[in-house]
Amino acid sequence: MKIKRLISIVACWLALYTASGQIQWKQVEPGVWKGMVGKPEAYSLLGVSGAAPLKEGFKLLPEVGLPAMASGVVSRIEAGKAMLRLPLRKEEQLYGFGLNFQTVHQRGKILNLHVDHYGGKDTGRTHAPVPFYVSSAGYGVFINSARYLTVYAGSAARKDSPEKPVAKDRNTDKSWSSQQYSDAVEILIPAEGVEIYLFAGPTPLDVIRRYNLLCGGGTLPPRWGLGFTQRTQKLYDAVQVEKEAEEFEEKGYPLDFIGLEPGWQSKAYPCSFEWDKGRFPDAEAFVGRMRKKGVRINLWTNPYVSPASGIYKDMYPYSGSHTVWCGIVPDWGMEQARRIWTDKLEKEHITIGVSGYKIDEVDGYDRYIWPDVATFPSGLSAEQLRQTYGLWVQRITADIYKKHNQRTFGLVRASNGGGNSFPYVLYNDYYSHRDFITALVNSGFCGVLWTPEVRSSKSAEDWLRRFQSVVFSPMAMINAWASGTKPWTFPEVAEQVREYALLRMQMIPYWYSEFAKYHFEGTPPFRAMNLEPGFESGRATYKEEVKNKNLEDNPYLEAVGKEVKDQYMAGEYLLVAPMFERETQRTVVLPKGNWYDFYTGEYAGNGEVITVKPGLDRIPVYVKDGAIIPMMEPKLHAPKAGEKINLEIRHYGMAESSYRLYDDDGETFNYENGAYSWRSVTVSRTPEGKLKGNIGRAKKGYPDNIGKVTWRFMTN
Amino acid sequence: MKIKRLISIVACWLALYTASGQIQWKQVEPGVWKGMVGKPEAYSLLGVSGAAPLKEGFKLLPEVGLPAMASGVVSRIEAGKAMLRLPLRKEEQLYGFGLNFQTVHQRGKILNLHVDHYGGKDTGRTHAPVPFYVSSAGYGVFINSARYLTVYAGSAARKDSPEKPVAKDRNTDKSWSSQQYSDAVEILIPAEGVEIYLFAGPTPLDVIRRYNLLCGGGTLPPRWGLGFTQRTQKLYDAVQVEKEAEEFEEKGYPLDFIGLEPGWQSKAYPCSFEWDKGRFPDAEAFVGRMRKKGVRINLWTNPYVSPASGIYKDMYPYSGSHTVWCGIVPDWGMEQARRIWTDKLEKEHITIGVSGYKIDEVDGYDRYIWPDVATFPSGLSAEQLRQTYGLWVQRITADIYKKHNQRTFGLVRASNGGGNSFPYVLYNDYYSHRDFITALVNSGFCGVLWTPEVRSSKSAEDWLRRFQSVVFSPMAMINAWASGTKPWTFPEVAEQVREYALLRMQMIPYWYSEFAKYHFEGTPPFRAMNLEPGFESGRATYKEEVKNKNLEDNPYLEAVGKEVKDQYMAGEYLLVAPMFERETQRTVVLPKGNWYDFYTGEYAGNGEVITVKPGLDRIPVYVKDGAIIPMMEPKLHAPKAGEKINLEIRHYGMAESSYRLYDDDGETFNYENGAYSWRSVTVSRTPEGKLKGNIGRAKKGYPDNIGKVTWRFMTN
Repeated sequence: MKIKRLISIVACWLALYTASGQIQWKQVEPGVWKGMVGKPEAYSLLGVSGAAPLKEGFKLLPEVGLPAMASGVVSRIEAGKAMLRLPLRKEEQLYGFGLNFQTVHQRGKILNLHVDHYGGKDTGRTHAPVPFYVSSAGYGVFINSARYLTVYAGSAARKDSPEKPVAKDRNTDKSWSSQQYSDAVEILIPAEGVEIYLFAGPTPLDVIRRYNLLCGGGTLPPRWGLGFTQRTQKLYDAVQVEKEAEEFEEKGYPLDFIGLEPGWQSKAYPCSFEWDKGRFPDAEAFVGRMRKKGVRINLWTNPYVSPASGIYKDMYPYSGSHTVWCGIVPDWGMEQARRIWTDKLEKEHITIGVSGYKIDEVDGYDRYIWPDVATFPSGLSAEQLRQTYGLWVQRITADIYKKHNQRTFGLVRASNGGGNSFPYVLYNDYYSHRDFITALVNSGFCGVLWTPEVRSSKSAEDWLRRFQSVVFSPMAMINAWASGTKPWTFPEVAEQVREYALLRMQMIPYWYSEFAKYHFEGTPPFRAMNLEPGFESGRATYKEEVKNKNLEDNPYLEAVGKEVKDQYMAGEYLLVAPMFERETQRTVVLPKGNWYDFYTGEYAGNGEVITVKPGLDRIPVYVKDGAIIPMMEPKLHAPKAGEKINLEIRHYGMAESSYRLYDDDGETFNYENGAYSWRSVTVSRTPEGKLKGNIGRAKKGYPDNIGKVTWRFMTN
Repeated sequence: MKIKRLISIVACWLALYTASGQIQWKQVEPGVWKGMVGKPEAYSLLGVSGAAPLKEGFKLLPEVGLPAMASGVVSRIEAGKAMLRLPLRKEEQLYGFGLNFQTVHQRGKILNLHVDHYGGKDTGRTHAPVPFYVSSAGYGVFINSARYLTVYAGSAARKDSPEKPVAKDRNTDKSWSSQQYSDAVEILIPAEGVEIYLFAGPTPLDVIRRYNLLCGGGTLPPRWGLGFTQRTQKLYDAVQVEKEAEEFEEKGYPLDFIGLEPGWQSKAYPCSFEWDKGRFPDAEAFVGRMRKKGVRINLWTNPYVSPASGIYKDMYPYSGSHTVWCGIVPDWGMEQARRIWTDKLEKEHITIGVSGYKIDEVDGYDRYIWPDVATFPSGLSAEQLRQTYGLWVQRITADIYKKHNQRTFGLVRASNGGGNSFPYVLYNDYYSHRDFITALVNSGFCGVLWTPEVRSSKSAEDWLRRFQSVVFSPMAMINAWASGTKPWTFPEVAEQVREYALLRMQMIPYWYSEFAKYHFEGTPPFRAMNLEPGFESGRATYKEEVKNKNLEDNPYLEAVGKEVKDQYMAGEYLLVAPMFERETQRTVVLPKGNWYDFYTGEYAGNGEVITVKPGLDRIPVYVKDGAIIPMMEPKLHAPKAGEKINLEIRHYGMAESSYRLYDDDGETFNYENGAYSWRSVTVSRTPEGKLKGNIGRAKKGYPDNIGKVTWRFMTN
């Protein structure tokens, strides 16, 4: 009896302890700790993604201890909800919380992380509302929950806080602000418990690397995925698609894959996943002919099953209670549903050579998606499926390609935490060029890729400006499903468009190496200036300012943050500063260190804000001192496995430096078994003070695909 | 043992039954049924409002049976959440779901009912997200929950629905739409159970009457509350306020109460609730002097307690974990908190003659309000308090005035279901004239009052147009806290403004009678055209149309509803069609029946859409055939208790008719004990065919406050 009593006391104490209080942190990977609050749900983001940590990658990162803030993290379970509080210091800025389109600085924000189409404001409802954030202080936090989370990212003040701000009289005190200083991030998780991951740096970029590595490393696209892609008009038939590919070839525009929009399917919205026999009478032959032209085929679909589809009857019992456009909604929590879809896609598309998918409408939009009251046979809630539907479709399709030892690279409209290694790029219907760039900036904070796709334009200027941007992004794409626009649609800029399309191709060795670093080391190929060493000093301060003091327009005197959200880093060395329609000049913030013009090699500045007037022909791109950019000859298709290429290796600035050039077959997963090579490229000074380049050999036993190497010292 | 087993089987069966299935309906008032789902929470909207049904009012309504749809209502409890499904027929339109600003038709909408400032879109986040809706089929539903509710108002389709729509191929079928036909309203209530009220009609207006009566009947403002009110600039002192009142008098503009903005308090944002001794050295004398001028004082405040307030220390233990602008947040769930505030307001303001309050920021706005992770000593959740904070401040302050047997009429920025009888009008910071009118239209669907306040304008035209509208609203107000604008600020329209301000005063007998009908009979004084008999036939159809077929701008082909949301009914007889800046003409939809011009008595139309060009001097107002509008002489202050007034009774059109004219002391609650009088006003034809008016006597024993009566037959 005494033991029983003791047990019950201990149980009671344990229950209380887990119900409220500090968190026990357990190191799971170097610089990554896991904490448990309450009873974490079995169904989680990492569980759905199936990501396994890329352990090798952690070895390249510095050894670090548990971040000091860890001891200040407290939790509480109340009425079936977990609440977290994570301390903040005054000088910290926060980044991340998913794919935001208008803001980079997240401190002070309130976000409801909810998979959704982007509605024009950074509210947390977005295509990838990844519950991960990184602090400028060099730590990061990931909440492994497939629930709708509410985040107070340093916006709420507690009356018992030791750092609580002092009340001001708004009547007389001009420094009154509607925003109270807050010393914590608070998060509401509508579940009885949750797993939290804490990442150390030391730098914010190291934090992101650890997050990406925990989630399997970033994706390594096939080499052709980094070429150019065009999506054809929605009702194009096989003949029209072939003709379009021929036109690209004739006009000298590069093209690696063509995306077919809904018309390839016999029924769309909801979908049959079956070829339309009218428009594509012999799909296999068509895909084969296209492949011979060097052009792969990507297929649009959404996952909602048409009653006319061959799998409708089989899928019916494994689908949710509600329909989307009268299509049933597969319950991916059921193995049977995944198998039925896998078999269908494999049989209809993948075995005949289709290279990948564009998977639409998995983000939802409340107006058409299943409601939160829907039920699913797996017992998962509508909310859990909404948060993970994008992960599931990526995982299912990626697994098929993996089985075929064939890489894919496609488009998807929703993702979430853990999806880092899936070979997909996010996109949406929104079409603000400026906000597309901010999304590209933020994609690097949350383990996703984003394309600022070009769709159509009302002017040649806008067309060219958008095209110049997309060339410096994970997927260089024209999405002409509705407009039918082609790269040469605006004759007055057709040549400039071609020039940039070819520049994209020339840079493939650089892009491919940078993606390899994303995969093996976790470094996002496209990322915010905030992650660049020497950037902070290049800009004013963290201080935010009240821009509009008119009380009737801005009654609560909200400050607007000073953020740099219209320029970004592309790979190790490039700083890209897009131009927007009707702008002839812009400012560019250059971090500390010498920066050079990408096109001319001329010195541009150092830790300063410069104003540039590049003219319509140029998107401003700057290069770090010592940058080594490997480029190949302009080709209309990305090099095939084993295809020899000639390199022009550019060096910028005055510094001696080195670069690691990656190579593998570019198409299979053999790199996972060591079939790849990192080649060392160095530039050093001769005793006479002249710069001289040297390129190392491929790994022993690995084929050497490099032909002629030319060195070009851009500065001097 | 057998009995025990039986009991457990029955308990199990009962648990299953309540967990999922049909609802048992129990009649609680004539035409009102209550249903219970799961275990309803003790804390509810009706509980907080404290509303007791106005039983007398139901007697005037027709006898009705349980609506047929009742048997189709099903519920489910799952993972701590209640889900409701309520059937819809094809031809039904839905109205209500709180104070929406841009839409009247709610069918097809998805709403998250959440007390909040209005953010520019009808998402359910609004100042009064009342969980009540009425169907054009003549029934209504109220969800008595203080939770954030998610409503799918006929937007979700189930795969097993007998009325499920048929899939279409978007590739080829031009009639494809992104909106599926849905045969149900579905509601997610994040609680283990909920009470639902079902209202019968027969007409939608009867449904609303029953809802208002269940919640205690609409508010009956003091007569002075229907006069004119000006809110002075925020730092005005006693001398400036007195001078302003004198200016109104001198210039001949009516004025019944002045609102003082934050500067009357010693500390504001957060608040002390104490007079600023510098600006108001002797508040009691000031209030007294103003009262002698016939002008009452209304005080702005928000409920967040400044550390500098005398009640801070006492309130501290009864406040929430988080602060608002560094002020503590009283936990109104605690009797102690209510008492402390009550005592403070009573002592500082009400005993010295302050007539009422404008209670700001109880709606919140996530950026400054307490977070959903906040805790409160009552054990209520942050969510429950957010949904009811506006109800609480109305109830607490209304109770003080009730205790003093003195009516009040003020402003509040949040309310919810059950607040129908509170003497408050909603307002906000948003300032779209057009959307303000739509809010006025919708206010009638949800038991709240709304003022399209005038604040400031960039042009004399806008100023006059807004002023003309506000005169036909529950509170005729200029809110000049920021701008300091006065009715005569635009000299080119100062005379027209004065004319309309005086018209407001002339119409007090009409307004007051119409508000009495709101109170005693539940008929909203300001309401949508959709509630007007003969309206449906006056407009095209329920069919919605796709306006923008450009796929890139509107990829999901969303239809936009045809709604009449820029005209409304004011009292029994008036149809008001506001004019907006830069518009010289507009269309007006006239329901079936003959309608006449309010100003001239001329015939305007019958069941048709007319186009009018009223000129800047006139806001179009139309009057029903047989309308009787009692008006008094223009006065600068509303009649006091017992003050004799002369009437001009206007009759419009050709029909014989009657009107019920209400009177009481206009200031106390003695009407609750029968101290009021309904006087019958009739217009009939003499044997010669001439129209002739007759006015009945006041109730026996009730003083007769009517002096001279003039009859004016406007038509002919």
